Amino acid sequence: MTSPRRRAPLTASDLDNAVLAVAAEHGLTNATIRNVAAHLGVSIGAVQHHFPTKDALYISAFTALVDRVTQRIDAVGHADDGALEDVLMELLPIDSRRRAEAQVMIEFSALATRAESLAAIQERTLARIRAALCDALSARGVDAPGVRATALLAMVDGLALHASSTTGAYPQEALDSVLRHQLTLILD
Amino acid sequence: MTSPRRRAPLTASDLDNAVLAVAAEHGLTNATIRNVAAHLGVSIGAVQHHFPTKDALYISAFTALVDRVTQRIDAVGHADDGALEDVLMELLPIDSRRRAEAQVMIEFSALATRAESLAAIQERTLARIRAALCDALSARGVDAPGVRATALLAMVDGLALHASSTTGAYPQEALDSVLRHQLTLILD
Repeated sequence: MTSPRRRAPLTASDLDNAVLAVAAEHGLTNATIRNVAAHLGVSIGAVQHHFPTKDALYISAFTALVDRVTQRIDAVGHADDGALEDVLMELLPIDSRRRAEAQVMIEFSALATRAESLAAIQERTLARIRAALCDALSARGVDAPGVRATALLAMVDGLALHASSTTGAYPQEALDSVLRHQLTLILD
Repeated sequence: MTSPRRRAPLTASDLDNAVLAVAAEHGLTNATIRNVAAHLGVSIGAVQHHFPTKDALYISAFTALVDRVTQRIDAVGHADDGALEDVLMELLPIDSRRRAEAQVMIEFSALATRAESLAAIQERTLARIRAALCDALSARGVDAPGVRATALLAMVDGLALHASSTTGAYPQEALDSVLRHQLTLILD
């Protein structure tokens, strides 16, 4: 007997996207196996076939989210003068897509404070972005590029945290102005 | 008929402290009305007498948490040269008490991305700390103190976020060194 409807096989990537979509709309705590299954119109068992636990589902979805961000950063590159600012702007919540992404990223970071598997993903991601920033600063002959890259990345993620967790206190011009000021301090 | 045990009347402050204690140990999502009541050995009704909903309980507990932090910052003051660094160090997770506090602060910030009542508390708190930093920078004749205060506060909270959500990548010496480097850049 065949299934009454044919559908493309459910992939891990479908599930990652569903977790991130449900989390963006309703908050990460509501991205449960049950809600993710409902979002995709599949059974709970179909989700559990890929990811038996919520922890496993979250590890995969967080990895997919940080991969999206690092791929965008890699695409910007760091060859020319404007690229450093462009890379950093990718991390700031300056449009609706990046605002939704920043919210979910902060929710995963909060979980990572108590879950070593998520903390390991966070650590690898930060190390990779920091290395890219450090390379870009080194290429311009900046002093102490490692410390400055750590500071820059912290500043940008702190701005994203502050902009996302307040209402209207950090308009895009303010984020842009703080970022430019810091780059001028570092690069001059 | 009197109650079999006498106890001091339960205050809102007892409840704030219980939320923060349960959150520090088990995560903010586990600081439910039921668990807070169990932690204090009181009935669910006794908690609900003060705070009928979890939202009301969280607004009060988050206010208590940010008051703790701002009171410590006020106590440091900004009269002498070392004070600016001391104020900023208060915000970094450099001992077990501040690590626990930073975790819960990040969890509240994550909730604040979706709850306007918490976002309003976050916004007032950031504005207050930023104003204190701006005053301290102005007193030293630093250029553009407002933008630099915003950048400093973002950098410190970003470092707290990165240190709390990774395992061992941000030892105290690293946090201290990034902070000193940034202050040297700004103040020189």
